[in-house]
Amino acid sequence: MLIVKKFGGTSVADKDRIYNVAERCLKDYREGNDVVVVLSAMGKMTDVLIEQAHEIHPNPPKRELDMLLVTGEQTSVALMGMAFDKLGVPSISLNAFQVAMHTTSVYGAARIKRIDTERIRHELSAKKIVIVTGFQGINKYDDFTTLGRGGSDTTAVALAAALHADKCEIFTDVDGVYTADPRIVPKARKLKEISYDEMLDLATLGAGVLHNRSVEMAKKYGVELVVRSSLNDSEGTIVKEVGRVERMLVSGVAADKNATRISVIGLEDRPGVAFRLFDMIAKANINVDMILQSIGREDKKDISFTVDEDSADAAEELLEKNREVLKAERISVKKNVAKVSVVGAGMMSNPGVAAKMFECLYNAGINIRMISTSEIRVTVLIDEEDCDRAVKAAHEGFGLED
Amino acid sequence: MLIVKKFGGTSVADKDRIYNVAERCLKDYREGNDVVVVLSAMGKMTDVLIEQAHEIHPNPPKRELDMLLVTGEQTSVALMGMAFDKLGVPSISLNAFQVAMHTTSVYGAARIKRIDTERIRHELSAKKIVIVTGFQGINKYDDFTTLGRGGSDTTAVALAAALHADKCEIFTDVDGVYTADPRIVPKARKLKEISYDEMLDLATLGAGVLHNRSVEMAKKYGVELVVRSSLNDSEGTIVKEVGRVERMLVSGVAADKNATRISVIGLEDRPGVAFRLFDMIAKANINVDMILQSIGREDKKDISFTVDEDSADAAEELLEKNREVLKAERISVKKNVAKVSVVGAGMMSNPGVAAKMFECLYNAGINIRMISTSEIRVTVLIDEEDCDRAVKAAHEGFGLED
Repeated sequence: MLIVKKFGGTSVADKDRIYNVAERCLKDYREGNDVVVVLSAMGKMTDVLIEQAHEIHPNPPKRELDMLLVTGEQTSVALMGMAFDKLGVPSISLNAFQVAMHTTSVYGAARIKRIDTERIRHELSAKKIVIVTGFQGINKYDDFTTLGRGGSDTTAVALAAALHADKCEIFTDVDGVYTADPRIVPKARKLKEISYDEMLDLATLGAGVLHNRSVEMAKKYGVELVVRSSLNDSEGTIVKEVGRVERMLVSGVAADKNATRISVIGLEDRPGVAFRLFDMIAKANINVDMILQSIGREDKKDISFTVDEDSADAAEELLEKNREVLKAERISVKKNVAKVSVVGAGMMSNPGVAAKMFECLYNAGINIRMISTSEIRVTVLIDEEDCDRAVKAAHEGFGLED
Repeated sequence: MLIVKKFGGTSVADKDRIYNVAERCLKDYREGNDVVVVLSAMGKMTDVLIEQAHEIHPNPPKRELDMLLVTGEQTSVALMGMAFDKLGVPSISLNAFQVAMHTTSVYGAARIKRIDTERIRHELSAKKIVIVTGFQGINKYDDFTTLGRGGSDTTAVALAAALHADKCEIFTDVDGVYTADPRIVPKARKLKEISYDEMLDLATLGAGVLHNRSVEMAKKYGVELVVRSSLNDSEGTIVKEVGRVERMLVSGVAADKNATRISVIGLEDRPGVAFRLFDMIAKANINVDMILQSIGREDKKDISFTVDEDSADAAEELLEKNREVLKAERISVKKNVAKVSVVGAGMMSNPGVAAKMFECLYNAGINIRMISTSEIRVTVLIDEEDCDRAVKAAHEGFGLED
């Protein structure tokens, strides 16, 4: 069996944890499996590197920032290689060049395009455990790229797909996917399994367990994921195709406090206005999440959308600079908002979920600022201070308790 | 003009120094020159990484150690790229893969074989300052290698040779090559120029200014080096062909306290004994420096040699293990010895230098334990505690004072 195992930064933060990860991999290896380990940078190393960059440059060029950040994962894999050697097991560490892991060109937010498997297969056939740097790739200019925060999950899934792995385990500091964040809702229940689509909505919406692009990729290539804890042996949650998952009305409640709402007020009510606006934002590589367009008043309309807090200043600056081009009256920015969502594959055939969600929030006295729905998701934008209460209310309202 | 500039770890140890280096490079760039900068790891980063490795493994596998160590230079070049960007100058950082810098396979002590110049030339023609990681390469397995301590000098010279650079400047924390270490001999004088051969002997013998392999390579490819300070604008010392250097009887006195003498006692006095011994040592990748064979007594002989302190334990262990194969009576190890040398191209035609050297040491009451000479060098092995006095005595005896 070929097993891809991914461990996050907390799991390799110090010597003891590195050995803990090595021992876990050894168990599979000794049972005769081929093992590929994907690692993130140790503990807070990525943050430390970013700080170091900011000392030199308040807004460091992204190409050089990626060149710097990739040293984090390379440090992890080299140290892990030493740990395996100490345990008497042959292993080899590989970075993005050595794999090679081809990505698109966008520094800081690249997407994996193609993985060469020759070197990995060669090392596996020599009975080595292969340790691969997560989060990073190389682009067509032969430069390092990074996949964005949480990108190591994507590396693991892409490797599992490229190698036709039998199993892809994502080890994290929680022991699976819960119906809500257990830190907010103590009665939250661990799910035994969940569909790609539900997980995708939960990931995008801030459940924080899996990187959304990794779930997209798992779905695309049919890679069955197991999300489990690096600290204990509990079974975790399996992420797989929708048909194979028990249909629940609502699988979970997710929250994302890292949001900012931006409103472009007083736009002309003509075709092409939204296109011009979002084309401009897309070209600046700013990811937009919820979008809401008001019903026109006279010949004007307003468009609101949410972005990550990190992108808020860049988006505001861009829009202020182009306000006249866009023929907008003004730009309004509201920070400290949160997105709360209920997600469930069973929703598709049950139209009452949105109404139920609004009822829960109404009963808790929480004001809704924006609404967005998909086939398997209802999301509301609310004030950040109401977020935890909203999660609890929805979790209870949908009967998700243990 | 194409200029290669190399800065050591002290020169890039913090933000201010990084900007200082950037400004120095900018001066050349603004005068219309193509500039290639070679950097070492920041300050003590390499030592910190080695410590980190030793925490995981007392004797880390060299392949993984190199994988770890190369992150040091990559950090330096990425941060330097950010500094140039902040100063408004286009630049690009390149690691050993990106250059590409091909070396032999020996991890930890690789030699540069071939440098691809295509990428660098491409970036230079786009008017970018090119920042290259020193000290590292890639081998035929597509793995990172390192060139050994001080290897960044070699990187710079190899790049200068491959690019047919007009100038190769090695910036260091001293402002040139002196007739002796100014910390030991306050009256030591800075040399305006010195030949490759003299510099080679001084480098090998511990002057500590230039890495010996870099001087060998400079000689081989006729790269004229300038050794100068990264902290001031003083002119430095030019290292060039012997015919072009003013011939002095003695150019300088060098000392190396990092030596251990190993004696293999009671070997058979037969052909092939020395070969067997040093072949064994070479295969273990241990560098031997001075070699002395005693005149045989009866049918036995002793062979003594010096190695770096770092290699002493490995050499002792190797020889003890093979004592019976070598048919040696015993192995004797003496640590705390120092090599002191006088070096000078003028020596070739003046046979009195060795005698003069011994006289100086005799007058200072210093006991000589081994002697080794070349055409342009006389070296003695003495007790470490006598080292500074010996340097002063020789410096004064040969009239090298300012």
